[in-house]
Amino acid sequence: MKRIKSKYDIFRQKTQIIIYGSNTFLGRLFDLTLLGLILLSVLLVMMDTVEGINQKYHSQLLVCEWIITIFFTIEFFLRIISIQKPLKYIFSFYGIIDLMAILPMYLSIFFPATNVLTIVRILRFFRLFKILHIPQISQQSLQLREAMQASKEKILVFIYFVLISAVIIGSLMYVVEGKESGFTSIPVGIYWAIVTLTTVGYGDISPASPLGQFLASLVMIMGYGIIAVPTGIVTAEFAKSSLRNNAVSTKKTCQNCNAQVHFDSAKYCHECGAELTNN
Amino acid sequence: MKRIKSKYDIFRQKTQIIIYGSNTFLGRLFDLTLLGLILLSVLLVMMDTVEGINQKYHSQLLVCEWIITIFFTIEFFLRIISIQKPLKYIFSFYGIIDLMAILPMYLSIFFPATNVLTIVRILRFFRLFKILHIPQISQQSLQLREAMQASKEKILVFIYFVLISAVIIGSLMYVVEGKESGFTSIPVGIYWAIVTLTTVGYGDISPASPLGQFLASLVMIMGYGIIAVPTGIVTAEFAKSSLRNNAVSTKKTCQNCNAQVHFDSAKYCHECGAELTNN
Amino acid sequence: MKRIKSKYDIFRQKTQIIIYGSNTFLGRLFDLTLLGLILLSVLLVMMDTVEGINQKYHSQLLVCEWIITIFFTIEFFLRIISIQKPLKYIFSFYGIIDLMAILPMYLSIFFPATNVLTIVRILRFFRLFKILHIPQISQQSLQLREAMQASKEKILVFIYFVLISAVIIGSLMYVVEGKESGFTSIPVGIYWAIVTLTTVGYGDISPASPLGQFLASLVMIMGYGIIAVPTGIVTAEFAKSSLRNNAVSTKKTCQNCNAQVHFDSAKYCHECGAELTNN
Amino acid sequence: MKRIKSKYDIFRQKTQIIIYGSNTFLGRLFDLTLLGLILLSVLLVMMDTVEGINQKYHSQLLVCEWIITIFFTIEFFLRIISIQKPLKYIFSFYGIIDLMAILPMYLSIFFPATNVLTIVRILRFFRLFKILHIPQISQQSLQLREAMQASKEKILVFIYFVLISAVIIGSLMYVVEGKESGFTSIPVGIYWAIVTLTTVGYGDISPASPLGQFLASLVMIMGYGIIAVPTGIVTAEFAKSSLRNNAVSTKKTCQNCNAQVHFDSAKYCHECGAELTNN
Repeated sequence: MKRIKSKYDIFRQKTQIIIYGSNTFLGRLFDLTLLGLILLSVLLVMMDTVEGINQKYHSQLLVCEWIITIFFTIEFFLRIISIQKPLKYIFSFYGIIDLMAILPMYLSIFFPATNVLTIVRILRFFRLFKILHIPQISQQSLQLREAMQASKEKILVFIYFVLISAVIIGSLMYVVEGKESGFTSIPVGIYWAIVTLTTVGYGDISPASPLGQFLASLVMIMGYGIIAVPTGIVTAEFAKSSLRNNAVSTKKTCQNCNAQVHFDSAKYCHECGAELTNN
Repeated sequence: MKRIKSKYDIFRQKTQIIIYGSNTFLGRLFDLTLLGLILLSVLLVMMDTVEGINQKYHSQLLVCEWIITIFFTIEFFLRIISIQKPLKYIFSFYGIIDLMAILPMYLSIFFPATNVLTIVRILRFFRLFKILHIPQISQQSLQLREAMQASKEKILVFIYFVLISAVIIGSLMYVVEGKESGFTSIPVGIYWAIVTLTTVGYGDISPASPLGQFLASLVMIMGYGIIAVPTGIVTAEFAKSSLRNNAVSTKKTCQNCNAQVHFDSAKYCHECGAELTNN
Repeated sequence: MKRIKSKYDIFRQKTQIIIYGSNTFLGRLFDLTLLGLILLSVLLVMMDTVEGINQKYHSQLLVCEWIITIFFTIEFFLRIISIQKPLKYIFSFYGIIDLMAILPMYLSIFFPATNVLTIVRILRFFRLFKILHIPQISQQSLQLREAMQASKEKILVFIYFVLISAVIIGSLMYVVEGKESGFTSIPVGIYWAIVTLTTVGYGDISPASPLGQFLASLVMIMGYGIIAVPTGIVTAEFAKSSLRNNAVSTKKTCQNCNAQVHFDSAKYCHECGAELTNN
Repeated sequence: MKRIKSKYDIFRQKTQIIIYGSNTFLGRLFDLTLLGLILLSVLLVMMDTVEGINQKYHSQLLVCEWIITIFFTIEFFLRIISIQKPLKYIFSFYGIIDLMAILPMYLSIFFPATNVLTIVRILRFFRLFKILHIPQISQQSLQLREAMQASKEKILVFIYFVLISAVIIGSLMYVVEGKESGFTSIPVGIYWAIVTLTTVGYGDISPASPLGQFLASLVMIMGYGIIAVPTGIVTAEFAKSSLRNNAVSTKKTCQNCNAQVHFDSAKYCHECGAELTNN
């Protein structure tokens, strides 16, 4: 019961291969063009905020942005047309991002450019996260994501404790230091505590009284031990996954049940008990 | 010899289940309400120190605080009533914290609000450490605590050496830099040394003379190697415990050949091929 | 068919042994002299930029530089003469660096000293990377390079994500904070984001509004988790290579039972008890 | 041929047990008193540099210092008298430190207190490194020292590369930024590069031009990857020593040759080939 494909169907199918795939020459070309245009568009938004450039080249930047926006609009509609379930795409995270990438320019016709529109235009930067079809990179980023995923819970609990510590330390410093040295309120004190515990240390607010400097020293030394914790969590996760891949060997394969991970020294399959042959 | 329970006894028992337990619906609701109120109370203390908010909404904030304080007072007395050994609770760390959470408001009737009272009010922030009945979080925080416990001694010895180094470096910089660039005394020099060694680097005090900048560079490069040490200690601890717990288990013992190291998921002994029983 | 060596050939051969080798006494002496002269020349370029020193000792510095430049020139031509394939050397990385080390002085006869010439003179600092013939150091630096090589791909993917995050965070802070607190454009905002995420924290630009400080706190805590990632990657790589090399070796194979994992110091197979031969 | 001990000999022996030993009650008491006095003396030197305290209590501090100095003098002579080889002690590192701890006060009678004397007085802080007779601490500090010793070479090579990078980066920034933004000379630029690469980030010098900020961003991201290296080295060392102690089991002991470190799964001794019995 083969359905006869209309010309439109063929067009849709070809479009899909180009836009969503990256195996054909045209698909890869499309990916690279899109990546280039997104980078260019991000650059344009950036440049537009630099005073000197904005005053001189505002109209040229505007023309460029309109061209890119029209390209993005066409791409957006082709994506909707060529996909099987267009609604699922439109309401997905990247569907909304793609819409956000084009909407602000059209809205700016009716409303003058405001800060809110700038924020929305920045959202298109998120598109940069998507353009990663190079298999080698995908694999590396998968390994990174796995290690971070595995250590997510521990890091969240850790951050919870850091936050409570920051609240207590910030409040204490507010009482000790007072408004003269910049600790104008407890929230500002907490901001200072986070700046210090993470070893960022801007120095926009810093203790001036001897007692405050003494307490700050304690906090810094505490932060010393504390910064070791997330590193320890992530490193252990990396080491585990890399040990799993290497030291515990995958060279032996059970010829009975196909299990592939064994001790280097294993003689029998730990899955089915069959003898392992050195192959 | 079943003792006939009085109405009061039943009330006490029910209260205990709600306040101390977290398995029943009411117990969980109570926990969440309490967590919410503590967070709200912490927020109120914070907001009260922000100048703009304090001036506009001081009376509203005061009313809210009184309501929360009364709730905390009732909770405190219910805790005392419902527990088996009330004295043990009252003189425990969290008993004192709970008392500290309500006392300042009552004292503020007799004494005008002072800095000391604010400090005491901040102590209630410590209650946030307690509200962690979610089993998953408890387990993660247990693992974190274990790893930190195991590396505690090493880190203390390490901090001892860092402190002596800070004292020597701080004194040296005081002599080299002098009062013009902010090194007004040896304690201030030590404060600077800690700020630098921990890589916080406020910049409120920084060397200005060539010799001072040269010495500071040496200290920073030293700090480079030094910051690696606590990280190394904690990471090795994490890696050890995580290797022990996950990848390879020593809990199973082959009853045929006594081999003790198996995969967590192993069903057959990799040494002799005998079936492993979950013991 | 031994070719009769001319005097020139013998001179070339001897020169090559001295310049390129480091086993003979003269070769080692030449290496040390060269290292000393490069360090001296780097020191001279540095000193020349310090105002006080420049004004007093400019002519003395100039004489020293000319002497060193002439020595470098002779060395450069000896290198070309004594090597088998001179063109390959001239167009290699270090060949260009060596040329760059002498060219600026000769150019300064025709053109007055400009900033561009200073940059070119600094390029000779790269020569310091080359003078490492001490075998122990070479081995250590090889291990370092191997570990960094193995983790290069993961770190590049990681930096890609950090850069996109910096772009998004910087843009957001530009919108939130505005020009009053120093966030004059999105590029400046990105600069701030990188300063914060890497925990450098100069404090030349820092958020002043409550919302900005709140967002900055989030970024810092994010940076907390993020700084753990490259450390985790490199550490896992080090641990892997150091476990492979030192504690447990896979270089020995039992010729009786084929067991491959042994201690480095093992003399007998721990599987079958047969003697291990060093193969 | 037992030599008859004179009263002086007995006194010397007893003194030695008290001063150098820490097993007897008096020996432990002496250690604690000495530690207390050293800490007090360090505190006195510190306090003397704080302006407010110095002006008010100068004479009291002076009296205290004289008392402590006299105690240290007596201790110094008792050490010389009671030890077998007094000259070896006097010219040892700690002998010189001990002498330095008392000399400045006596010199200050003849010369007015100068900066040089203050430096010498600070040298007594080094005595704090010595007072560590608690066995548990000694063991931990030994493990720390071992791990740092094992990774020393790698870290030195690493620091060499960091220093050359700092020289190149600092010179480049000097050319790019110029004197307006604080990069007054190449040495200052190198100081800035080290401040940045180590993520200390004082902010006393920071790039102001767009190109300078761009280069600084690159340096910071480079520093991101770089800071991972010493951590990786030290951590791998810690992990190795801790794995050696744990995962590779020491539970089995060869009854033939007494070797104690075996694989968990070893059946034959890797030292002598004898069969291992599960004991």
